[in-house]
Amino acid sequence: MAAWELQGYLNLSLNNLTLQKGQETLNEHQLIKEYFSDVGSAYLAEQGIKVPIGDDAAIISLPREKESVISVDTSISGVHFLETMEPSDIAYRSVSVALSDLAACGATPAWFTLAISIKEYDLKWLSDFKQGLKDISNEFKIPLIGGDTTKGHLSITIQVGGYIDPGKTLTRKGANVGDLIYITGYIGEAMAELDQLKLGKSSSSNKNRYLRPKIRFGVAERLLGIASSAIDISDGVFQDLDHLCKESKVGAEIFLKKIPTFLSKALSVKEINRGDDYEILFTSAESNKGKINDIAREENLSICEVGLIKKGSKVEIISAEGKLVETPSGYQHF
Amino acid sequence: MAAWELQGYLNLSLNNLTLQKGQETLNEHQLIKEYFSDVGSAYLAEQGIKVPIGDDAAIISLPREKESVISVDTSISGVHFLETMEPSDIAYRSVSVALSDLAACGATPAWFTLAISIKEYDLKWLSDFKQGLKDISNEFKIPLIGGDTTKGHLSITIQVGGYIDPGKTLTRKGANVGDLIYITGYIGEAMAELDQLKLGKSSSSNKNRYLRPKIRFGVAERLLGIASSAIDISDGVFQDLDHLCKESKVGAEIFLKKIPTFLSKALSVKEINRGDDYEILFTSAESNKGKINDIAREENLSICEVGLIKKGSKVEIISAEGKLVETPSGYQHF
Repeated sequence: MAAWELQGYLNLSLNNLTLQKGQETLNEHQLIKEYFSDVGSAYLAEQGIKVPIGDDAAIISLPREKESVISVDTSISGVHFLETMEPSDIAYRSVSVALSDLAACGATPAWFTLAISIKEYDLKWLSDFKQGLKDISNEFKIPLIGGDTTKGHLSITIQVGGYIDPGKTLTRKGANVGDLIYITGYIGEAMAELDQLKLGKSSSSNKNRYLRPKIRFGVAERLLGIASSAIDISDGVFQDLDHLCKESKVGAEIFLKKIPTFLSKALSVKEINRGDDYEILFTSAESNKGKINDIAREENLSICEVGLIKKGSKVEIISAEGKLVETPSGYQHF
Repeated sequence: MAAWELQGYLNLSLNNLTLQKGQETLNEHQLIKEYFSDVGSAYLAEQGIKVPIGDDAAIISLPREKESVISVDTSISGVHFLETMEPSDIAYRSVSVALSDLAACGATPAWFTLAISIKEYDLKWLSDFKQGLKDISNEFKIPLIGGDTTKGHLSITIQVGGYIDPGKTLTRKGANVGDLIYITGYIGEAMAELDQLKLGKSSSSNKNRYLRPKIRFGVAERLLGIASSAIDISDGVFQDLDHLCKESKVGAEIFLKKIPTFLSKALSVKEINRGDDYEILFTSAESNKGKINDIAREENLSICEVGLIKKGSKVEIISAEGKLVETPSGYQHF
């Protein structure tokens, strides 16, 4: 196979994918050439990509004195996004949620690959999808360096690569008893936007928190050496805090009324925990409070203190009245 | 999301995947812990993996004076493998075909990630699948360093990473007019095995060329500095030679009777070009003939000279009678 090559079918004598729509057909090479080969090609040199799309594999010159950071995410139509969304938003969002993992580590992104399954040749769909890839590629100066295309239910697997200074990575493991817990941005915006999209309404705001989540690379890089642990909020605030606590072997208490939401009304535990926020939850020693306030101000981003790391292994959610919130039945991970 | 994290569903209030079979359920963390977290963990240190499965992303110490080689391949049930195959073979083969791209570059493999969609929780299936991952992980000493698991039609996307000395990569671009064309191993074995499998018969040989393709890392590494260009044979001999010629901006003639097949009878153009051989097709100056014979002998692998690189842009297939073979209609890429 290849750094980019469409794959074929067991039932064809020739292992070629040909996509068809009406009278039109598109073979693998046309597809790759027209829709994928030049996404972010302006950034190949600066990202050290010596062999991009078109050969067996991509070849990357490695920066000295750096560690490599790798993550992968699959987005499936009807599961992770709605088929009715604009293809450009589907593309942008799929790359975005993968990049979120690099941001949570404090890494700088460098490249991405795309493994995509598509049902048919749809010129308009593919052109618009490519625009989304280009948008995010341009935003972070990351070229598309390879991939694989297959025929099937719409599914997008994005692999992202980046770099970080050795030993500097923010992981889920470093939270210490007494550390404060912080959250960037606002919780619940993305899911509120999704609710609108499901009703066939366009996004109620121009923020596009669901369709085009803003990945917090700038803030995360500034938290290196300040945050003791970090995780991106994808599963939901309480669950992701629980993941972090498990890895750090600590407990936590988190105050419902401190969780920053975009609405004036308080959100329920369930509403807060719907996930897909792609904000960063991190911990830091109390002595860093001033530095964190500086970062928030200078980056023009809300960073709220929402709780405290404690001994133990439980995540305790405290209501506005100061009471322990009972977690609903069927509520996993607690 | 994460270096390994199962993803949830738009229609669930909690973004958790729970797989179900009968009365049994399995949540994401059990799945990852039981079936994926320890595959190849014995090789983490030697491959420089500082943060493996379980955090937001995998962190890799980079070797000095090397370039990184990256490739990705998707295998879909019913398309790239039969659902009736043993899960361990599905796992092995999926990783194997991705590794084939690294081998074709002359790279040394270092790690892999797995993005998998599965329909349901099947203890036996998952255990056997894990065995296949372990088999190939142990064979090449490559750990599984991350991934993503989603619910859906069985689909496996493997990303592989490895290293190579700077500037040494075998690419598709270097073939020169006058170079000889070589093929490792035998062509057609894999597809003959697949035909047996489709009939519900077990493999006729113990070679498992289809289920467990042998990736030619050893030979490929020895071809660095000797081969002028290389490609792995996945689409089919003639098509892959055509890919190579297009990238090298040359033409070629290839002799049907010289193509090494496992049967005593000659195969037709169509039979030869079915693909999935995962052998290496490479070119080399005539003056290297002796060295290539030495490699073949020392590696105990057939390496056959099958043709010649010429001026132009066409791949000409020459019959046993010395005539130009007409390519059948519907035969793409020529």
